[in-house]
Amino acid sequence: MIFSCKQETKVRIEDNKATEEVVDIDPLPSWNDGTTKQAILDFVSKTTAEGSADFIPVEDRIATFDNDGNLWSEQPVYFQLVFAIDEIKRLASDHPEWATEQPYKAILEGDVATVLAGGEAAIVKLVMQTHGNITTDEFDKNVRDWLATATHPKTGLHYNEMIYQPMVELLEYLRANDYKTFIVSGGGIDFMRVWVEEAYGIPPYQVVGSSVKTKFEIGEDGVPKLVKLPELNFIDDKVGKPVGIHQHIGKRPVFASGNSDGDYQMLQWTTTATGYPRFGLLLHHTDADREWAYDRDSHIGQLSKGLDDASKFGWTVIDMKQDWNTVYPKIKV
Amino acid sequence: MIFSCKQETKVRIEDNKATEEVVDIDPLPSWNDGTTKQAILDFVSKTTAEGSADFIPVEDRIATFDNDGNLWSEQPVYFQLVFAIDEIKRLASDHPEWATEQPYKAILEGDVATVLAGGEAAIVKLVMQTHGNITTDEFDKNVRDWLATATHPKTGLHYNEMIYQPMVELLEYLRANDYKTFIVSGGGIDFMRVWVEEAYGIPPYQVVGSSVKTKFEIGEDGVPKLVKLPELNFIDDKVGKPVGIHQHIGKRPVFASGNSDGDYQMLQWTTTATGYPRFGLLLHHTDADREWAYDRDSHIGQLSKGLDDASKFGWTVIDMKQDWNTVYPKIKV
Repeated sequence: MIFSCKQETKVRIEDNKATEEVVDIDPLPSWNDGTTKQAILDFVSKTTAEGSADFIPVEDRIATFDNDGNLWSEQPVYFQLVFAIDEIKRLASDHPEWATEQPYKAILEGDVATVLAGGEAAIVKLVMQTHGNITTDEFDKNVRDWLATATHPKTGLHYNEMIYQPMVELLEYLRANDYKTFIVSGGGIDFMRVWVEEAYGIPPYQVVGSSVKTKFEIGEDGVPKLVKLPELNFIDDKVGKPVGIHQHIGKRPVFASGNSDGDYQMLQWTTTATGYPRFGLLLHHTDADREWAYDRDSHIGQLSKGLDDASKFGWTVIDMKQDWNTVYPKIKV
Repeated sequence: MIFSCKQETKVRIEDNKATEEVVDIDPLPSWNDGTTKQAILDFVSKTTAEGSADFIPVEDRIATFDNDGNLWSEQPVYFQLVFAIDEIKRLASDHPEWATEQPYKAILEGDVATVLAGGEAAIVKLVMQTHGNITTDEFDKNVRDWLATATHPKTGLHYNEMIYQPMVELLEYLRANDYKTFIVSGGGIDFMRVWVEEAYGIPPYQVVGSSVKTKFEIGEDGVPKLVKLPELNFIDDKVGKPVGIHQHIGKRPVFASGNSDGDYQMLQWTTTATGYPRFGLLLHHTDADREWAYDRDSHIGQLSKGLDDASKFGWTVIDMKQDWNTVYPKIKV
């Protein structure tokens, strides 16, 4: 039987007679009973019980979550890259030179394989083109417009409908227990902030991500603006994650959740600290039917070193197929 | 009469008879009645009253505060510079070469004027020496140890006792009205985070400041650590403040408070935005008896352009001598 932390009194009316019964509320209904769910419930329970030797004061209840492949899907390519590709198509009529210049030419010909073959240099070029030389307000609007219209080729869902219901429940469960939930993602900080508050209940100031440099300018109309520059500022991935956590949060997490080797150092930084109990959580994509199955050889979200070292560090590994009875929210966001 | 936002019911027992009376609670008791206090109370009142045309939803109630000279004193030199100077003295026995090298030589001879005459280059050298090549944990400890022992030459107080009681009340008043309070300071983010939670009730993840770069490393003992490098990462001053706000907070403030021209762009960025009412607050140091009096010609916290343009932007200017009946907390922190 699963441990439940909350109970609810329900009134049942039968033969005109009301009786009360106490019902357990499952804070994680999309998680199947088993060791993974139990480990999460046990950790939250013991760290929030007053008088427990494992008690963590509220101000130190910091939980960090990767985003791509951890809170929403990331296949067949990162959704932010889909945004960049769609933006190139949208802007192409103003750039006749793109008809002959890579990676734009490949995009306009619908040849994503060639774009990806261009490697990091091609991706950075796309990102700078679509995320730079634009005000922060204009960029927000572009992301918002794209989310409202673009749909995923496999599921037909809007991209922000491909968030993981079990993780949304986990975020809410942690917050209900006075944990502060942060996103710590290799994705773009400005790209995420547009939609994560509605999707996950995480406000913009609790989002850590990669960024380009930004410049304060007074426009010709005398109105100040912030302009995103086509110049990298920070890459919030791998060894960058503990750095980003320090820079933005300034406290070491007690709970960290990720799904790839890009999260390895974040989990390592979190779970090797002394003083409090710590929790490391890795999502293993094992569900080719409802989502995707990939790990050691994936071109995206590669998970290899993390699987090797999970037991050494005491990290809990989610088996998506076994542990989740639901993947995406049933009610559209 | 001052507008008061909260009332308290007190029970008075007289002749064995209990009577209730309604008493106004002044949320800003260290502020004298007058236009400054009234402007603050009016703004908070109108932006938090449900149904008011000026209502601001809770998620957009973002308030930013400069620190040096705005939440605590900054004369005769920034307190963080005093820390750096004291650290040089503490570390001198390991550095015999400092006996002949500036600015160290001047510090060891107690000649702060020569240190300051070295300008920004000397200051940066000091900061890099004392804030770089050190783990984040070691740096925290150094700041903590210094705060516990060092005292200010004029007041004899510990530096974290020289916080402004009226501003502490303002921070609490805003938070009681569901505003999120952030520090946005040119001071070092790691230096501030050690003590601001206790002093102002502002957690580390709501502090924006200047920083050096940080590197994630695995120590020889196999334990991960973050090392502060002697290399500038970000200067959170002047045009850097709106940039820092965007990077850390990701929302435009509706309330911004500062005291020098280093805060000009933060107030400009805040108060020229459309949509909601906005509040800009400038602290004018006019109290040579209880604190210091300085503005246009000060070598620290110069306030000139802000005074010129306050009325143009509708910023409220605090006259410290007139508006505050208390400067520092009476009970030691």
